Amino acid sequence: MHLEVMLQKIQDGDKRFVSRALSEVENSTQIGEEILENIFPLLGYSYRIGITGPPGAGKSSLTNQLTKLIVEKNFKVAIVAVDPTSPFTGGALLGDRVRMTEVGTNENVFIRSMASRGSLGGLSQRASEAGDIFDAAKYDFTIFETVGVGQSELDVAKAVDTTIVILVPESGDSIQAMKAGLMEIGDIFVMNKSDRLGADQAVTALQVILSFRDHDEKSWLPPIVKTIASENKGIEDLFQTIIKHKSFLIENDLFDIKRLERLKNRIRDLVVSSFRNEFWNGERKSILEEKVQKVLVGKISPMTVAKELIEDFKSSVI
Amino acid sequence: MHLEVMLQKIQDGDKRFVSRALSEVENSTQIGEEILENIFPLLGYSYRIGITGPPGAGKSSLTNQLTKLIVEKNFKVAIVAVDPTSPFTGGALLGDRVRMTEVGTNENVFIRSMASRGSLGGLSQRASEAGDIFDAAKYDFTIFETVGVGQSELDVAKAVDTTIVILVPESGDSIQAMKAGLMEIGDIFVMNKSDRLGADQAVTALQVILSFRDHDEKSWLPPIVKTIASENKGIEDLFQTIIKHKSFLIENDLFDIKRLERLKNRIRDLVVSSFRNEFWNGERKSILEEKVQKVLVGKISPMTVAKELIEDFKSSVI
Repeated sequence: MHLEVMLQKIQDGDKRFVSRALSEVENSTQIGEEILENIFPLLGYSYRIGITGPPGAGKSSLTNQLTKLIVEKNFKVAIVAVDPTSPFTGGALLGDRVRMTEVGTNENVFIRSMASRGSLGGLSQRASEAGDIFDAAKYDFTIFETVGVGQSELDVAKAVDTTIVILVPESGDSIQAMKAGLMEIGDIFVMNKSDRLGADQAVTALQVILSFRDHDEKSWLPPIVKTIASENKGIEDLFQTIIKHKSFLIENDLFDIKRLERLKNRIRDLVVSSFRNEFWNGERKSILEEKVQKVLVGKISPMTVAKELIEDFKSSVI
Repeated sequence: MHLEVMLQKIQDGDKRFVSRALSEVENSTQIGEEILENIFPLLGYSYRIGITGPPGAGKSSLTNQLTKLIVEKNFKVAIVAVDPTSPFTGGALLGDRVRMTEVGTNENVFIRSMASRGSLGGLSQRASEAGDIFDAAKYDFTIFETVGVGQSELDVAKAVDTTIVILVPESGDSIQAMKAGLMEIGDIFVMNKSDRLGADQAVTALQVILSFRDHDEKSWLPPIVKTIASENKGIEDLFQTIIKHKSFLIENDLFDIKRLERLKNRIRDLVVSSFRNEFWNGERKSILEEKVQKVLVGKISPMTVAKELIEDFKSSVI
């Protein structure tokens, strides 16, 4: 199929072609690369939301309810579920995906799960690329739901406009979230399961923690929204808070700055991955295999090998 | 101070110099780089253990008890606590560190916390470098305790000889661990808080899950050790299981293979970081700032910019 036809079908929001484009991009096929190369003039439509938090906080449930609400308002929603799962553990996702069925069958909702296949490093990049497809396909909102708490979550946060951190009023939950670096990345905090004992104290504790964040009168002070996702409570409040954050970003010219930062990160990643591909040819892989033996017995250092390899690369481009 | 003196003091296990070397390496000072460059002939002494698992499973508590036990056996233990925490949330670590005080004051124990300072990517590399210092300083065991569940944990697993995954018998805990990719990286599984209701069922479920791992008669089937870290129960059993795994690695020549893999990863990381440093000079940073504006308005793609930058780099090395 011609690239132009493909791009047009994506822009028309044809789900089959969106799905195919996502696969091409995920598998780094030639057409996938070409789509990414040519999709940029089409971007800037979709608002990107990240939902993260510790395991068991209710991320899937919240994503589910938020999606339902947004769809009721006649918007289109795409969900990118970022699961650092391998094929071996594929079955583990069943629980979440079953919960998503309710919204997954809606014609204005598109759900895409992305597993890591052992290379978590590139997961956020691939998630971001999927976001571009949804952007071109005119989904009003794209929600990135991340499982677990780690580097991929922090990376995904860089790739969205509004990051929602979801916590539950359990002892130590805020502390664990802080440890994982979630406190700095949250634009909005959700205290889910807020009917539980200790919820008010947990919110107060969270307010105190957040007040320590560097801020001045012009900066966004992350609000805390109380929800009970399982009972669909607080979701409208959350949506309105997202819209408030969006307005804040636009009024302060931060929306474009965020997009610029995203693009710069993308370019930096592309530079490294292009370099890696070109660098590790068969010959240099052999040099590595050979020299690492010498490192193992303490004869030379890893840095010496790295430098030799880089010199070899440089002399090869002349 | 001369490098030779520094290296000698590290080998003598002088805690002040070990501490100083760690700081130099962490801050990437010149002496730090030189230490890393020259430490390789001194390595291969320390056995490296990784302890990971979901938040609240009791990693710190288990690390604490295991350390006490190993010290009682007259071994020296270093602990690298890998905390993806920023300065802003520094106080959050207090809880763990207080718990560690019991072992931290022992002269045969060295505890080092490593925070991410926003660049989690390099955290596992820096943790591994700290491990090298402890190795040269003749610590018999180095325990890498990681907080949270994410990319840094998976990376740290690549940098150790035995990876311990700690779980608790809570509904969904194993499922969450699977999602996070922990099932593949564990050499030993610990079911902590094993006096809790449902512990036996959780162990059975875990056995079933682990039986799905690819294995033949020659591969290591990860044993499950039941502990109650808070009551110091099961720790001797855990230690013996670690020793069994160590013997298995040595008997099957996997110990050196693991070290070779580690060194290769190190060299690959060094190639990328050296390249990055050389690549992003002021001029190319300016090009990025200028071109990204064109990407934002959809005139060119990020890949085009990346390629132009790489061409510029190549022509500059001629």
